[in-house]
Parts: sequence; C-alpha cells; structure tokens
Amino acid sequence: MEHSASAIPYELEFSVRDYECDLQGIVNNSVYQNYYEHARHQFLLGKKIDFAKLHAEGIDLIVSRVEIDYKYSLRSGDIFKVTVTTRKEGHLRLIFEQDIFKLPENRLVSHAKVTGVGLRKGRPFKLDTLPGFEQLL
Amino acid sequence: MEHSASAIPYELEFSVRDYECDLQGIVNNSVYQNYYEHARHQFLLGKKIDFAKLHAEGIDLIVSRVEIDYKYSLRSGDIFKVTVTTRKEGHLRLIFEQDIFKLPENRLVSHAKVTGVGLRKGRPFKLDTLPGFEQLL
Amino acid sequence: MEHSASAIPYELEFSVRDYECDLQGIVNNSVYQNYYEHARHQFLLGKKIDFAKLHAEGIDLIVSRVEIDYKYSLRSGDIFKVTVTTRKEGHLRLIFEQDIFKLPENRLVSHAKVTGVGLRKGRPFKLDTLPGFEQLL
Amino acid sequence: MEHSASAIPYELEFSVRDYECDLQGIVNNSVYQNYYEHARHQFLLGKKIDFAKLHAEGIDLIVSRVEIDYKYSLRSGDIFKVTVTTRKEGHLRLIFEQDIFKLPENRLVSHAKVTGVGLRKGRPFKLDTLPGFEQLL
Repeated sequence: MEHSASAIPYELEFSVRDYECDLQGIVNNSVYQNYYEHARHQFLLGKKIDFAKLHAEGIDLIVSRVEIDYKYSLRSGDIFKVTVTTRKEGHLRLIFEQDIFKLPENRLVSHAKVTGVGLRKGRPFKLDTLPGFEQLL
Repeated sequence: MEHSASAIPYELEFSVRDYECDLQGIVNNSVYQNYYEHARHQFLLGKKIDFAKLHAEGIDLIVSRVEIDYKYSLRSGDIFKVTVTTRKEGHLRLIFEQDIFKLPENRLVSHAKVTGVGLRKGRPFKLDTLPGFEQLL
Repeated sequence: MEHSASAIPYELEFSVRDYECDLQGIVNNSVYQNYYEHARHQFLLGKKIDFAKLHAEGIDLIVSRVEIDYKYSLRSGDIFKVTVTTRKEGHLRLIFEQDIFKLPENRLVSHAKVTGVGLRKGRPFKLDTLPGFEQLL
Repeated sequence: MEHSASAIPYELEFSVRDYECDLQGIVNNSVYQNYYEHARHQFLLGKKIDFAKLHAEGIDLIVSRVEIDYKYSLRSGDIFKVTVTTRKEGHLRLIFEQDIFKLPENRLVSHAKVTGVGLRKGRPFKLDTLPGFEQLL
C-alpha cells in the first residue's frame, strides 16, 4: 500500500432515512454505495475538483471497481459517518479507501475500496498530469 | 373531462423487486412514482416521441403536478401492471391518467393523475403545435 | 382549512446527493417524495410518536394520498429545507402540508399535501383517541 | 475455484428505467447492485428457497462482501440480462458469480462476486446442513 495523501480522513455525517431500509428492517446493501458516493463527491468538491468543468474539457473520472465489506447493519434512526482517504495505484488509478462508522460509539459498519480511473476522450490517462489531483495522490 | 385519445390504455407489466420494499414489508410510496414514470416513458417511446431529440431542439416535457391515491399495498413477489391513458387539458397541459393493478386478479392498487407541461426555452407552449403530439391529445 | 396545530412549521435541512439527479441533471420527481417522507418521520420522532411501538400494538399510520406540485428544479450541489405542518380533516385523516425551499434564497421549489390515515387492525379509527396525536391535530 | 453447481447460469432480462440513470446519462453504479440482488432473489425463489420461511425459523442469509467490476455503461433504453451461478467456499460461504450482458450483442457490462453467509440466531453455520442448499453448493 502506498502512502495515503490524506492522513486525517475526510468525514461526513449522515442519518439513516427510513425509505433506505428494506424488508429486514436494515439499510439495503446497495444504499451503502450511495453513502460512499455522496461522501466522495463532497470530499472532491471540497478539493475544488469540479466534475462538470472537467467533463466540459472532455475528462471524466469514473469508477472501475468497487469492493464493499459489510460487517454490521445500519437501522432506522441510526446516525453514522463516512470517511474518505485517497492514494494512487500506478499512474492510472485513484484509490478511495472508505469506512462507515455508527455513531456515537464509532462501531465499524462497512469498509469500501473504490477504484477510479480518469478518461480523456474515453482513454485512461496519467492522473498526476491534472491540476488539483496532486493533493489526492 | 375531455375525451381520452387512447381508449384502450397502454399497459406494462412489472414485478416487485425486494429492494423496493421498506421496513413494513410493502413497496415504499415513492417507488410507485418510479413505476408510473417508467410506464409513461415506455408509452411515449412507443409513440416515437423522443425526449433526447426534443431536448436537443430546446423542448422539454416536464411534470408539474402529481396526484397519487394509494388503495392497496404491493408486496415482495407481487406481479402487477401499470396503465397509461392521455388527454389534453387546455392547450398547455397533457394529462396522464394511470392505474396500477395487481395481477392476476386485477385488483386496483393505486391511481395517479400526472400533469405534464411542454417548455420551449423554458416557457410553456401549445402542445398541439408539436409533431407527434396529436396522437396523445 | 382547519386551524394548523403547528403554526411555526418544523424544518429539516438537506443537500442534494448526485445519485438523486437524473439524465436531465435535476433531482428526479420521485425523490421529492423521499425528502418529504424523511422530514415527516423526523418530525413525528420529535413528537415522540413511535411507529415501531404503535405497530406492535396493531396500529399503523399509512399514506392514502399524495399531491405534489413541482415549481422549480433542485440540482446537484443545492441545499434546501423541507417544512412540515399538520392538521386534521374530519376524525379520520391527518393532513401534512409540506414545502421545499431552496436555500439560502428561500425559493419555493415544491409543495405537497399528504393524507395519512390511522389503521387499527386494518380499519380506520378516530385519530384523536390516540395518546400523543392531540399535538398534531 | 470449486466446481460450480450450476453449469448453465440462470439468466434474467431487464430494461433500464430512466430514473436509474444519473447526471452523466448512464445507470448509476449503485443501481447495478439492485439488478444483481433482484436476479439472485429470483434465482433462489426458483430453487424454492424461501427467505421469509427461513427467517421465521431464525435463519438469515446475508451478504458479507460485494466486488463489482464496471466495464461498460448501461444507458437509457438499453436491454440487458443478469446471470447467476453459485458455488460454496469452505463450509460457511456461498459465492454468487454474476455477470451483466447488454443485449442483443451480449456485450459484457459488469461482473460481480457476492459472498453470502448463513446466520442461525446471529452465528454462521454450515450451509450444507440446510435442506435445499445442496443444489447451490
């Protein structure tokens, strides 16, 4: 594992919404991906990385792979935080390591490793050539 | 009520997906709007009304009002159909009357009245001036 | 219209999550129902009205009708608040009047009227016979 | 890799619903998990494995890990199929290998490996002790 660019992880607090829970009374597995995505986008926004602007220049950052471990279930009424740290893997991949902790006890609920790739006109390119990305790598 | 342009309603069959159900074991209220929307879009597609092409010409068809009555609950494993009929209201509004019936017994589950408005560069315009819309009005 | 039990409406602040936006770059119509529901549930929780406990006693509060007006579109990055006020309609129906305002300018985005009915063992009953409901009616 | 119990994979056909697409005009990453889940549940239903009945007996089958590779994007109007094959990993884990192929050209869109664990009163147990599971292992 390469050194993380962000030693103190970014954190975003959420509360479970009842419509996110399923038959079993727990948050549906797919909803965790929504939580992870929203935390990543808010994190990138805070770094002034503007997807709309990049898209207009023909550059897209897409997710090529997601790994999620489910360790504990979130339920109606729960409060939790989602963390984000980033590092690069080779020249082409940006890795997001993310955790979900139930609050206030900080119990680990889930971990995710999300792989992002930058595409310029549909082809992968070296992420460190992009202004602003050096803070993530 | 003006005469409906489509006497025999368009029908589309669905099955409930478990992630659409909530804590109470029934399909969440907001999901019915997804079902109604998908049926409307498939209906319009069958009429060769192409949103992407219209959008490129500066024309958008948007929903300005939704009324939904919930009469019975869909559950995991249920099969159902969604119907669509259309009529105009004045020159500016396209009304979709839609029902959901649980199959095979054809039990009425929900009814919706959805009001659509056409916008040309952000302003409402007479829908009957648009090629293809005469089949809906 | 009967007198509102809550003159100063309850308010809950949200931010748009990108996955809630659709092809047109705006929040999908059905997602507003999620926002309205989450605000209602948080409002009721604050009034110590506990659905799980009521359900265990054979009582369910269900939505029988939803009317939503869409006046303006929420987009990626938007911050907004959802309000809740309640009043009764006859002895059997609890009405939620709700608005969504885009912040910070307080621009009206949408209005909803949601009709709730209490069911005891599947049959409607007089809501004012329930402890705690007098604060809503 | 152990021998697959189901040499000819189970297949289920879907069509993209517009509300599943996001800002970029493609199906949101998290929605693939909905597709994969619905295909798994329909597959198990066909094997007469009844979650509700198992749950009543104190047995739950839960997802402990998901890995998804995204190779190509589904868009509005696309038709696709989701496949399911299963095998066991050790005595405690049921593995679902799943693919999504865009139709009619059978282009690989995504692959998933989903790990399921059986819990009896909250503790993992040997899956092959359960009637009906031998067809999956």
